[in-house]
Amino acid sequence: MDGDVGLLSPVSASPAVAALTGDRAVLAAILAVEAGWASVLEKAGLAPAGSAAVVAAAADVDRYDVAGIAVRAQGGANPVIPVLADLRTEVKALDTQQVGGGVGALGVGALSAVHTSLTSQDVLDSALMLLARDAVSVLLTDLRGITTALAALAEQHADTLCVGRSLTQHSLPFTFGLKSAQWFHGLAAAARRLEAVELPLQTGGAAGTLAAGTVLTKDSVETPFDLSGNLAAQLGLAATPGPWHTNRLAVTSLGDALAGVTDALGKIASDVLFLSRPEVGELGEPRAAGRGVSSAMPQKQNPVLSVLVRSAALQAPYLAAQLHLAAANFNDERPDGAWHSEWPAFRQLLRLALGSARHLRELAEGLQVFPEAMRRNLDLSGPLLLSEGVSAAVAPLLDALPAGENAGAAGGTGKQRLQSVVDRTLEAPAAEQAGTYRRLLREAVPVSALSDERLDELLDPAGYLGQAAEISRRILAAFPDFAGVATGATHDIPTRTDLNGVSRG
Amino acid sequence: MDGDVGLLSPVSASPAVAALTGDRAVLAAILAVEAGWASVLEKAGLAPAGSAAVVAAAADVDRYDVAGIAVRAQGGANPVIPVLADLRTEVKALDTQQVGGGVGALGVGALSAVHTSLTSQDVLDSALMLLARDAVSVLLTDLRGITTALAALAEQHADTLCVGRSLTQHSLPFTFGLKSAQWFHGLAAAARRLEAVELPLQTGGAAGTLAAGTVLTKDSVETPFDLSGNLAAQLGLAATPGPWHTNRLAVTSLGDALAGVTDALGKIASDVLFLSRPEVGELGEPRAAGRGVSSAMPQKQNPVLSVLVRSAALQAPYLAAQLHLAAANFNDERPDGAWHSEWPAFRQLLRLALGSARHLRELAEGLQVFPEAMRRNLDLSGPLLLSEGVSAAVAPLLDALPAGENAGAAGGTGKQRLQSVVDRTLEAPAAEQAGTYRRLLREAVPVSALSDERLDELLDPAGYLGQAAEISRRILAAFPDFAGVATGATHDIPTRTDLNGVSRG
Amino acid sequence: MDGDVGLLSPVSASPAVAALTGDRAVLAAILAVEAGWASVLEKAGLAPAGSAAVVAAAADVDRYDVAGIAVRAQGGANPVIPVLADLRTEVKALDTQQVGGGVGALGVGALSAVHTSLTSQDVLDSALMLLARDAVSVLLTDLRGITTALAALAEQHADTLCVGRSLTQHSLPFTFGLKSAQWFHGLAAAARRLEAVELPLQTGGAAGTLAAGTVLTKDSVETPFDLSGNLAAQLGLAATPGPWHTNRLAVTSLGDALAGVTDALGKIASDVLFLSRPEVGELGEPRAAGRGVSSAMPQKQNPVLSVLVRSAALQAPYLAAQLHLAAANFNDERPDGAWHSEWPAFRQLLRLALGSARHLRELAEGLQVFPEAMRRNLDLSGPLLLSEGVSAAVAPLLDALPAGENAGAAGGTGKQRLQSVVDRTLEAPAAEQAGTYRRLLREAVPVSALSDERLDELLDPAGYLGQAAEISRRILAAFPDFAGVATGATHDIPTRTDLNGVSRG
Amino acid sequence: MDGDVGLLSPVSASPAVAALTGDRAVLAAILAVEAGWASVLEKAGLAPAGSAAVVAAAADVDRYDVAGIAVRAQGGANPVIPVLADLRTEVKALDTQQVGGGVGALGVGALSAVHTSLTSQDVLDSALMLLARDAVSVLLTDLRGITTALAALAEQHADTLCVGRSLTQHSLPFTFGLKSAQWFHGLAAAARRLEAVELPLQTGGAAGTLAAGTVLTKDSVETPFDLSGNLAAQLGLAATPGPWHTNRLAVTSLGDALAGVTDALGKIASDVLFLSRPEVGELGEPRAAGRGVSSAMPQKQNPVLSVLVRSAALQAPYLAAQLHLAAANFNDERPDGAWHSEWPAFRQLLRLALGSARHLRELAEGLQVFPEAMRRNLDLSGPLLLSEGVSAAVAPLLDALPAGENAGAAGGTGKQRLQSVVDRTLEAPAAEQAGTYRRLLREAVPVSALSDERLDELLDPAGYLGQAAEISRRILAAFPDFAGVATGATHDIPTRTDLNGVSRG
Repeated sequence: MDGDVGLLSPVSASPAVAALTGDRAVLAAILAVEAGWASVLEKAGLAPAGSAAVVAAAADVDRYDVAGIAVRAQGGANPVIPVLADLRTEVKALDTQQVGGGVGALGVGALSAVHTSLTSQDVLDSALMLLARDAVSVLLTDLRGITTALAALAEQHADTLCVGRSLTQHSLPFTFGLKSAQWFHGLAAAARRLEAVELPLQTGGAAGTLAAGTVLTKDSVETPFDLSGNLAAQLGLAATPGPWHTNRLAVTSLGDALAGVTDALGKIASDVLFLSRPEVGELGEPRAAGRGVSSAMPQKQNPVLSVLVRSAALQAPYLAAQLHLAAANFNDERPDGAWHSEWPAFRQLLRLALGSARHLRELAEGLQVFPEAMRRNLDLSGPLLLSEGVSAAVAPLLDALPAGENAGAAGGTGKQRLQSVVDRTLEAPAAEQAGTYRRLLREAVPVSALSDERLDELLDPAGYLGQAAEISRRILAAFPDFAGVATGATHDIPTRTDLNGVSRG
Repeated sequence: MDGDVGLLSPVSASPAVAALTGDRAVLAAILAVEAGWASVLEKAGLAPAGSAAVVAAAADVDRYDVAGIAVRAQGGANPVIPVLADLRTEVKALDTQQVGGGVGALGVGALSAVHTSLTSQDVLDSALMLLARDAVSVLLTDLRGITTALAALAEQHADTLCVGRSLTQHSLPFTFGLKSAQWFHGLAAAARRLEAVELPLQTGGAAGTLAAGTVLTKDSVETPFDLSGNLAAQLGLAATPGPWHTNRLAVTSLGDALAGVTDALGKIASDVLFLSRPEVGELGEPRAAGRGVSSAMPQKQNPVLSVLVRSAALQAPYLAAQLHLAAANFNDERPDGAWHSEWPAFRQLLRLALGSARHLRELAEGLQVFPEAMRRNLDLSGPLLLSEGVSAAVAPLLDALPAGENAGAAGGTGKQRLQSVVDRTLEAPAAEQAGTYRRLLREAVPVSALSDERLDELLDPAGYLGQAAEISRRILAAFPDFAGVATGATHDIPTRTDLNGVSRG
Repeated sequence: MDGDVGLLSPVSASPAVAALTGDRAVLAAILAVEAGWASVLEKAGLAPAGSAAVVAAAADVDRYDVAGIAVRAQGGANPVIPVLADLRTEVKALDTQQVGGGVGALGVGALSAVHTSLTSQDVLDSALMLLARDAVSVLLTDLRGITTALAALAEQHADTLCVGRSLTQHSLPFTFGLKSAQWFHGLAAAARRLEAVELPLQTGGAAGTLAAGTVLTKDSVETPFDLSGNLAAQLGLAATPGPWHTNRLAVTSLGDALAGVTDALGKIASDVLFLSRPEVGELGEPRAAGRGVSSAMPQKQNPVLSVLVRSAALQAPYLAAQLHLAAANFNDERPDGAWHSEWPAFRQLLRLALGSARHLRELAEGLQVFPEAMRRNLDLSGPLLLSEGVSAAVAPLLDALPAGENAGAAGGTGKQRLQSVVDRTLEAPAAEQAGTYRRLLREAVPVSALSDERLDELLDPAGYLGQAAEISRRILAAFPDFAGVATGATHDIPTRTDLNGVSRG
Repeated sequence: MDGDVGLLSPVSASPAVAALTGDRAVLAAILAVEAGWASVLEKAGLAPAGSAAVVAAAADVDRYDVAGIAVRAQGGANPVIPVLADLRTEVKALDTQQVGGGVGALGVGALSAVHTSLTSQDVLDSALMLLARDAVSVLLTDLRGITTALAALAEQHADTLCVGRSLTQHSLPFTFGLKSAQWFHGLAAAARRLEAVELPLQTGGAAGTLAAGTVLTKDSVETPFDLSGNLAAQLGLAATPGPWHTNRLAVTSLGDALAGVTDALGKIASDVLFLSRPEVGELGEPRAAGRGVSSAMPQKQNPVLSVLVRSAALQAPYLAAQLHLAAANFNDERPDGAWHSEWPAFRQLLRLALGSARHLRELAEGLQVFPEAMRRNLDLSGPLLLSEGVSAAVAPLLDALPAGENAGAAGGTGKQRLQSVVDRTLEAPAAEQAGTYRRLLREAVPVSALSDERLDELLDPAGYLGQAAEISRRILAAFPDFAGVATGATHDIPTRTDLNGVSRG
């Protein structure tokens, strides 16, 4: 039986991801749990001396036929059962060899260290958590790579003007620095949440009572709880107050956190996809040989990193929901299908997150930024984009004018008169709106109240950025462990003057 | 890179399913589309004579490194691009060899038959439809196996009494025959819908205009539409009025139909899981060596077929939704991630349906039915279960009694007095309710109005089955192509007398 | 208790949608089923003469307290139960009044026509199908309005050049006519599928055996099946071979079809949202007073129709999945929660489809099209966009040249030499690429092989549209019932010459 | 326009839930945010003295036409815009009245305190968080009610024997106390996670730069950040380092936590539904007048609390996924549909959680427990259920026997010989298996190695409960704030002897 290598899932098709999450890695994790348990038993004096070494040697994934095990797993609806059968065969063989014996020779009795008092759910739940532990660790490294790169962009482009967009339309002047800082914000918060997820060991025995473990330890100084604690410590997993075989919050919390990560990555990809369109041209993906090519069009350069990241972000929400659905259906002391529906979703979420983080890291570290295009697009909307700020600044001046100085017969408040200026401007052809707006404003407000110089200042988008820079600084400061070294100098608390200046200091 | 062999998805981990849907099968389908196209071109005189044979020879999946292609697919976010590169290399090599040439020898020029005027979406969309064609064909065979078995159960158990259950509680007498017929009903309807889904070929070229195809055919008697029609006929796919590169109804319709199938299978599994519980014991899964075993409990016999089918039914809805979500996000002439998010869901739906149909077929063909347990459970609720029918039959008798014959001082309508009988019965201990109900009824209705014999008839659950048998017959008759030979004799239209008899004729 | 009026769901907040799908409409549909049943019973002689009229009068939705019923529905987990209690009270009161009687006066006995032999699932399933019948009818009218408008756009803009885009980048010349035709294609196919969905009546009684109906009809010339058929005919619903209380394909098929519609609408909205961005400017939503305004920015004009349609398209897939999930969990003869989880999703899907169709209809009927912007954006990519076609047309010319005439020392095939022209062009600044490409081509191909005139023709995007017009024509012709009158003249089968001409005839 | 009152969603149809989450509550929250902002502005000297009082008076939800606002919300795709228009009208009217003036009289100028420098997303995001704050607070009270009841059950039934079930089959002896403790465990952990979710205020202005706020505060001692902090404190919401208008982790985290709660509730409901089936009879829902009735069957008592809770648990996962999907599509500085798709899911999740917690609280506080039925079901599987423990205890005894004392010719290890005892027992009829197992065991093990008394002990399910009681104690001790007063005495650390005893102390 040929295995799947990711042909239909390019976002995560890579040897690195496969090594962390492939069926072989799952099998290795199952074996690692069994070997760990043997070691715990031996240390507690509950398995013969030397047995852990035999089990460890037998638990070498290369000794097993993964495909055969997968097919045999149908018999018990569970891969642990055939793994155990094969593991016992290996242990028996090795144990005999070890003592150099011929036919019938007895070894150290390592068989009794295999799986004793465990149930298959203990092993599979723990193995998947072990898989997650390693995958999340690699994932967090990539996420830190991304956030470091985004923090650097936030600082480099603190002054790079662009336009803010809402509901597809231009809203206000913005900076690419703040955009980067907000990308950082979303991802750093998601990564921090992922870091906080506990990955617990499972050990409960057949019904979650530790009954077999109790029999096993009845003459021991160690309780079944001690054994669990020892195994958790050895595998780097968390301990819990009791078995969680029917309470799947650990699983759903991991799924939720992974979806949180792919959400944040997807939002970034979605922005990059738009901003690197030919009509926009503000950003470009890093180029690499052979990437972004088309099978039909030689001139095309597709933003494939973002495309792949977006494809993952569209998939992760359902997978996280799948885990919740399983949790809600975890009837009895082990459910009748819900548990089995967890496994593929659990693994696939890890994969999508790993794959898209890797791609976005490459993207973030090599992102091409085109400030001229940003400025050109900002200028498309002309000074009308500043009408919110103009109104706020100028209306009080108009209202404060002595009645006689009010230009023309136009009544109404200052605000109403400025809105009328906007309305009349919008009637002009697009290309003339910039000039028209300034002219009509000049007519509406006497120079005595507003100098030409101040008027020009009000019509400069760089003067209406609000707290763009300070917000960026605060965001980076809130996640120092994700901002990298570059941001060391930015955590100063700004003075009042800095903050209240209309233009960023 | 080791591939996945289904270790975490036992419902579909089998060589048969892998052969139909694995990465290797996907690659083979991609190659089949390219080879088919070469053949179409050659036949139309648009590729050199002999080129189709060279391409066909080169399109042998064994020549390719699937894992390498999967990794290289990241470059263009698309597996077709590396496949094409390798296919061209193979074609070039074979073409040269074929004419026996040494270095520099020219072949028939088969390279010009490869992919000419196509785009990668043409090939991948068509390849996945090809995959679906074969998988659906196998699936329908298994579904027919199931429906045939269910139709037989419906007939064999037309008289097997059991209890109907709603909101977990007993509702009315029922038959296992009707239960089987309704299982049949759900699955046959879903299978018929799946049969009706059209699997179309895709050929539109880079932007869906057939531009390259138009250039290609400009001196030919064949139009680009003719070429598409020829390829569709050759591959056994449907033709469409135009490219469907941005309209994914074909994809979502297949997904919906597959989810319809897993829904129907899941409903059956869900019933079997309950009915084979130790406390219920009405059904048992067929036994097979090594199936249903537990890693910890030697006496357990788990209903693993149903468990696996249920696990698939919990997963399919999200996958079908994934396809809709992709369709709703198919922006531009080829989208920026939505297309890519389709692929894994498309394949996984096929797999879950294939795997669960196979398991349920084995279940349906070997289901153990225990009529005694059905009767025992029916009797748990006693004759109160018949109170609906008793009320309908007896209330008019009471209302028709001359005033003097009305037993006791109890006023009210016949219906109210019968409800009071029920209420008083419910106050008795469970074990005595059967006797109590009969006694109170007897007290409430004079023998002149209702003979003892007729009373006993009213309290016999076999007499209150309504149209159970006739409904079964109608259902089987509505899907003759799914009911198998066994039902040949059942399609007679019953007479009025049959239908109106309270007891099934 | 104040009701929800759609404050958080603007896409469907309208009196029209509320009238079709609101709780009051649900209640009215429940009452209509009960009244219809009374009428069927009376006509069959199974209820007293005059009773149907009394029930019909009592079934006036204005007589009921919807909010009170909703709260009381918790008692039986089902709204039909309190509706029935109130309906019986109303019938009793009216029946007495009708015969002019004072206290204790008897009417026609209409109470016996209420709900007799039905179960609450019969009524609720049928009522929701009745709701769907009316909603789908209105929906199809709006969908036809959209497809008619899109067909007109397809014809008007058959010659309007724009650029095709894939993975966000420019691919090939395209026409806005074909874009409109493809929008039409997606929506017409989805609408046709919706039209084909059967909406069945449900009548099975408490356990789906028609047991009570059998008792009821035992002295009648009509069978329970006849009664069901009569009610189906009266309500305009479909009849089925048997009750479908546990087989939910009718429900999921409707949900799937509705999601198919919102997918197609969402794809259009997604395109409009991009094409009406300030940087693109190819389309504009129709303006209307008060629409698209912003609370903060006076100059903004948001494409709110598309935004709302897109918001619905993002929601519908999950709702359709919810229906499948329910279907897969329909255990027993009535399930323990799955049925209840269907209802909100069922209604919400109708709402989202109705609301978004209404909005998109307004959009399609008033869409502003800006061909100059389309051309400007097309020209952004310059003639390199035509390199696919240039290569196809010119490479053979180069290959056919006598060895001596091959320009320069550059070896390789014609194709390779043309790719080198593309590569060298891409090294030029963007603004100079158009000129560069022509110049390098001119240098690479002698005039003897390719005249200046023919070269210019090859570099004209209007000459590389392939079958854009013919594909549009075929699509419209495939859905004549959705294309409206405007397309009457377009169904001629084009001649071969038309089809093979590189430029559209 | 009539509103929806929950007719199709009985799980949450109640005045209490409507008061917390209905459209009217949403409108009230929007108005509360605006009133709070006016107050903050006035306190900062940025709005006229007296204006906050005017706005507060105008922000009375009774002054508004919710339905009209909902319909007008379509204009800007946003309910805040029409609310603002109406609020301004109210403020203007009240401001004039307040100073007693006639036509043209001027008030305090309260209009300038309305919405100044905010954008509609600020208001709606904050309003929904306000709604969530109140709803979550009520929800947590109900969850604590449930966990307190479950903790009490865990203690009361620490010794109540039942059977553990996995994959529907009996696994090992269990206690209803541990079952209750595990229900507690799942719910307490989910509730704790919900408690930890931060509900942040949103204030960023039109593009998230605080630009208007910067202009507003330019002559003030307060910065825009101070104003945000003041409003957050006033509304009881969290402050954030920067606006989160495009980073939706706060929204998805709430959704995830709510789904975690409905998962835990759904698992409990799922168990109760099975355990209260007539064939099982271990539990019963509390009875209440009018609850659980059927429209057709007078004797039925449906477990409607569990049914409703389960129906919610089947819906919540998709809604949580909807929020993630929105987050992943939050393009630009405000997205083009994703934001709008959040709102209904956000509210519906709150509702489902509120409704199902209320129902499950009633269930938990009045749950009927039937220990006799638990014991009867446990005994169904007979002593074979103990074979795991028997094997663990007896195999070493057999292995330790002197060769001569090994009963019979049967070779093999002790374990193998005990498995053979199990196999032979399974060949006996079910009713005789208990006796057969004991007899065969007795034959296999000499009395010298295992006394009759000890054998009976081994065959007593009460002796094979492992750490059931201790696990319960640890679980309750881990969530003291959720366990209620009843558990005060249970947190002692048990001694080693307690833990290792095979029977619970």
